[in-house]
Amino acid sequence: MKTIGVLTSGGDAPGMNAAIRAVVRTAIYNGIKVMGIQQGYNGLINGNIKEMDLSSVGDIIHRGGTILRTARCEEFKTEEGRQKALTVLKVFGIEGLVVIGGDGSFQGAQKLSHAGIKTIGIPGTIDNDLAYTDYTIGFDTALNTVLDSVSKIRDTSASHGRANIIEVMGRHCGDIALYSGLAGGAESIIVPEEDFDIDSICKKLIQGKNRGKLHSIIMLAEGIGNAFELGKEIEEKTGIETRVTILGHVQRGGSPTAFDRILASRMGARAVELLIEGKSGRAIGIRNNKLVDMDIDEALEMEKKFDKDIYELTKILSI
Amino acid sequence: MKTIGVLTSGGDAPGMNAAIRAVVRTAIYNGIKVMGIQQGYNGLINGNIKEMDLSSVGDIIHRGGTILRTARCEEFKTEEGRQKALTVLKVFGIEGLVVIGGDGSFQGAQKLSHAGIKTIGIPGTIDNDLAYTDYTIGFDTALNTVLDSVSKIRDTSASHGRANIIEVMGRHCGDIALYSGLAGGAESIIVPEEDFDIDSICKKLIQGKNRGKLHSIIMLAEGIGNAFELGKEIEEKTGIETRVTILGHVQRGGSPTAFDRILASRMGARAVELLIEGKSGRAIGIRNNKLVDMDIDEALEMEKKFDKDIYELTKILSI
Amino acid sequence: MKTIGVLTSGGDAPGMNAAIRAVVRTAIYNGIKVMGIQQGYNGLINGNIKEMDLSSVGDIIHRGGTILRTARCEEFKTEEGRQKALTVLKVFGIEGLVVIGGDGSFQGAQKLSHAGIKTIGIPGTIDNDLAYTDYTIGFDTALNTVLDSVSKIRDTSASHGRANIIEVMGRHCGDIALYSGLAGGAESIIVPEEDFDIDSICKKLIQGKNRGKLHSIIMLAEGIGNAFELGKEIEEKTGIETRVTILGHVQRGGSPTAFDRILASRMGARAVELLIEGKSGRAIGIRNNKLVDMDIDEALEMEKKFDKDIYELTKILSI
Amino acid sequence: MKTIGVLTSGGDAPGMNAAIRAVVRTAIYNGIKVMGIQQGYNGLINGNIKEMDLSSVGDIIHRGGTILRTARCEEFKTEEGRQKALTVLKVFGIEGLVVIGGDGSFQGAQKLSHAGIKTIGIPGTIDNDLAYTDYTIGFDTALNTVLDSVSKIRDTSASHGRANIIEVMGRHCGDIALYSGLAGGAESIIVPEEDFDIDSICKKLIQGKNRGKLHSIIMLAEGIGNAFELGKEIEEKTGIETRVTILGHVQRGGSPTAFDRILASRMGARAVELLIEGKSGRAIGIRNNKLVDMDIDEALEMEKKFDKDIYELTKILSI
Repeated sequence: MKTIGVLTSGGDAPGMNAAIRAVVRTAIYNGIKVMGIQQGYNGLINGNIKEMDLSSVGDIIHRGGTILRTARCEEFKTEEGRQKALTVLKVFGIEGLVVIGGDGSFQGAQKLSHAGIKTIGIPGTIDNDLAYTDYTIGFDTALNTVLDSVSKIRDTSASHGRANIIEVMGRHCGDIALYSGLAGGAESIIVPEEDFDIDSICKKLIQGKNRGKLHSIIMLAEGIGNAFELGKEIEEKTGIETRVTILGHVQRGGSPTAFDRILASRMGARAVELLIEGKSGRAIGIRNNKLVDMDIDEALEMEKKFDKDIYELTKILSI
Repeated sequence: MKTIGVLTSGGDAPGMNAAIRAVVRTAIYNGIKVMGIQQGYNGLINGNIKEMDLSSVGDIIHRGGTILRTARCEEFKTEEGRQKALTVLKVFGIEGLVVIGGDGSFQGAQKLSHAGIKTIGIPGTIDNDLAYTDYTIGFDTALNTVLDSVSKIRDTSASHGRANIIEVMGRHCGDIALYSGLAGGAESIIVPEEDFDIDSICKKLIQGKNRGKLHSIIMLAEGIGNAFELGKEIEEKTGIETRVTILGHVQRGGSPTAFDRILASRMGARAVELLIEGKSGRAIGIRNNKLVDMDIDEALEMEKKFDKDIYELTKILSI
Repeated sequence: MKTIGVLTSGGDAPGMNAAIRAVVRTAIYNGIKVMGIQQGYNGLINGNIKEMDLSSVGDIIHRGGTILRTARCEEFKTEEGRQKALTVLKVFGIEGLVVIGGDGSFQGAQKLSHAGIKTIGIPGTIDNDLAYTDYTIGFDTALNTVLDSVSKIRDTSASHGRANIIEVMGRHCGDIALYSGLAGGAESIIVPEEDFDIDSICKKLIQGKNRGKLHSIIMLAEGIGNAFELGKEIEEKTGIETRVTILGHVQRGGSPTAFDRILASRMGARAVELLIEGKSGRAIGIRNNKLVDMDIDEALEMEKKFDKDIYELTKILSI
Repeated sequence: MKTIGVLTSGGDAPGMNAAIRAVVRTAIYNGIKVMGIQQGYNGLINGNIKEMDLSSVGDIIHRGGTILRTARCEEFKTEEGRQKALTVLKVFGIEGLVVIGGDGSFQGAQKLSHAGIKTIGIPGTIDNDLAYTDYTIGFDTALNTVLDSVSKIRDTSASHGRANIIEVMGRHCGDIALYSGLAGGAESIIVPEEDFDIDSICKKLIQGKNRGKLHSIIMLAEGIGNAFELGKEIEEKTGIETRVTILGHVQRGGSPTAFDRILASRMGARAVELLIEGKSGRAIGIRNNKLVDMDIDEALEMEKKFDKDIYELTKILSI
């Protein structure tokens, strides 16, 4: 392995830069040349590629976003697009490729692997929606960003005695809502994995009010109905003034937390080690607090388990 | 003056607690008893009132929201409601009242003043929409909260090459949009005080993109059209992917900044001094970096001037 | 089990309040009465004890410090002191006790367990110096607090082209230095578990400077020599201006991170469950991402392992 | 005026980048070429100078430090050094120079002005130690950084019932200590401008403790005795455990606040306007909330006034 490439693909996540840094420095430490591919698979198709040195990744470990930029790429999903990519990889002499992204990005990596390019996937997405790994890079930062907003909303809600619905990201995965709901002391948490009953949410709001609670937080995963309509319904049923906040893209940015920087650094280094060992088509994850790697197809076929115990715990702790 | 009261009214703002603390401690320092009135004018009508001591305001200077809670109060706008309030004030022996809030709250204070209660208004609102004072308590904190979100949105926008519309608060006053737009390096700022032309906004986006800008921020004051429709229009006209974030109630919370705590502390102390001097119906403000006080009616009649120079400056600095 | 007590002991750590909240609410949910004991074992000896209800722990999950306050207690280390404590426990009808703290606190809990009180230990200390658990409550928050300071010091160091020594806490455990050094991109990390060679640190500084690095960070665990003398020595040997920052007690405070709040909430709930199951003398930990509990004596006898792999990784990533 | 230069000099301050950005963009907007001079007057002497374009200052408004880097320069204080600088200015065709820094930097600018180069000074220092301007760039950010640390120290102090001495920067100017003391709710503030009496500080600590205060903060400006010795003395006299934190260089970094970014942007633009008007040897300041400019010599001769009223206010508010 003389030359490897690295790209970030799909939605960006805080910590991607820490992963890029680890890939680049570990490679150079091992005498391997690293090419930075811009804007995900687009850069691979269009040859938007530049060699990276130690300084290319200086002063980026603490920055949100990705210096390689990212994009979704329709063309790469076609046979023709991938052929272009393979030609470009050949021209640049890239034998191994590290792909930092989510499931769509991994599928692309797997296809390149079948075509003879050694590829390794690193899970970078705030959604924590990959079943094969306990944590994805960016999830911890997103949780803390959500909590910061919850704290601010608490202040004003307590002053006014309001209920608040806070809609967070997740794309069919309730982890951000669940864990930020637990950590934020939310009264109710609405996730796609569990049915919810508006009447019991309302009952809890009223009980809380009667007990003297100054405010209530309802954490809502995106994609489950309309937050504003939910707010209206709750207001009508309880008589408690209810406000809605949709946190949106704020959740994707920010300086990564210690947890995400460490996870990203370890995964980036491991990716290069795997390439040196001749591995390909592997997804890196963390399970039971240990780095693991497994076949990308297998990884993607696994079904994400919802943590029912934590969900039940949130009910007990918010009585 | 043996006994005074203090209340917070209208929308809450970070720094209100610092003002309450200053009122309470300055009063006690001067041998005056202080009664804390809960939930704005409602507490005045309903007698929801408790004496405060030095410890009542311990450890609150750095907290968002208001420990006295706040509310809007329709009943107080009626003659009958105000009569109840006057009776309550008499019962509790409250001779002077410090009202922390916005224009509506001040009007109430003025009415009480005409009825013989000595009242002083302190401007507490994040909107900075009071013409007679350069700054209101909470405005500086809100600006910094907005900037924190702008930074996070920058990260992800730069990764994806997107434009972003960020809708901020202001209620007919563009100050939050204007100053956070300047400080956040926004490409365009849309405020109620100035006409805007969507074509020139689009032109600027395209020029920026051609120059290599990775992202663009459009700061939008609430109440000027629909942010999502604006986003769609921009996307169609420019072909640049555009995302919308409505910051919402997050802007009302958070630990107050140094600026807001200092302003609130000074104004709170001054309010008590004015009461001691026998003044009434006065609004405290800061102008040209000096505390001032003026007749509440005069204060409310003044017309808020939009800072056209700053607006023009933002255009030059975002070329 | 009808009544349990909860106390925090030793140095405080962010997340202790989240643990208290979980203990109280899980107990009440299960029909158990909870007594809050103030200032660690002192409160136990002096009967500084009050019943807690659902509202006692409202609005504290996000606050640093501990509402029960904490202290070290010499008297409790004596037989006589512990007899007093046992009497007090009897008087208040406390059958089970949850102790949140570090190793000294756990030893106390173990002694009470031998005397017939059912006790459970929850690891609360920023130092992460307990061998039997992968993480202690407060460690993740401390890491992020350190990183925030590292970012600020980076800014000014890069402007001036300086090296910086940053001394962090740890009490004979290098984990804060190690993990914040990895996540902060430190050039060198000095921990008690590994010998260090000042000449190789200096060599690295000079190489970095020659390569164009604008600044360098040396992360130093407290207790290893004098930071200021080290700074002088480095300055003399390299000619690079070197500044020293001792972060100190700032590391112990702050709103807990999502990770610490979740860990604390889970551990607090588990502690009550263990008491209900009739367990005693158990320390709760997290290993391989799963909650575990083990005999306190065994837990305290385990030897903390330094993560040599991570230490080596920091060298590769900072070349 | 066809070409101007810009440099930052002396200690760095958050907001310097916002000022550089404003200088560059305002100049280019007016058809003027801008040269960026690296590392203060050193770059001027050594010709470390590069043309800046619109993109040179993209994405820097929110970053701490200075992209032009900074340094103190002994050589420039000599006649010979300044002759070199004048030659370099001529070679690069630089007719006007914007100097961002403190008093030493301004003296240099004044000397260049006398030698025929048009110079304008912008006050950039966290210390707020320039008498002619109400605020310097970086001061507001430093205050907020200090407050963030005060909040964290409060948490742990309240848990332990300790007193804390927090030493802040200021170089013979007590403004950081004074204003962060007011905003942080410090019990005592020790500044170079006012004598202090350790016995009355101790008395206040004891009174506070007796009143039930869980913690006390003593804000200390650097350079007034030894913080650790002061801590020991207080501990001995009061019996209250006392901890010392020296905040150090953390205060110089961090993303600038809204206030500092706005002030810097306005001052940067004004500097270019003044050069266009043919002005020279002028220092820009803000007084009574309005931008002003005055002769540098006059500005530096003014004597900084300590705000005694604010100092007295802090005593009242911390009873």
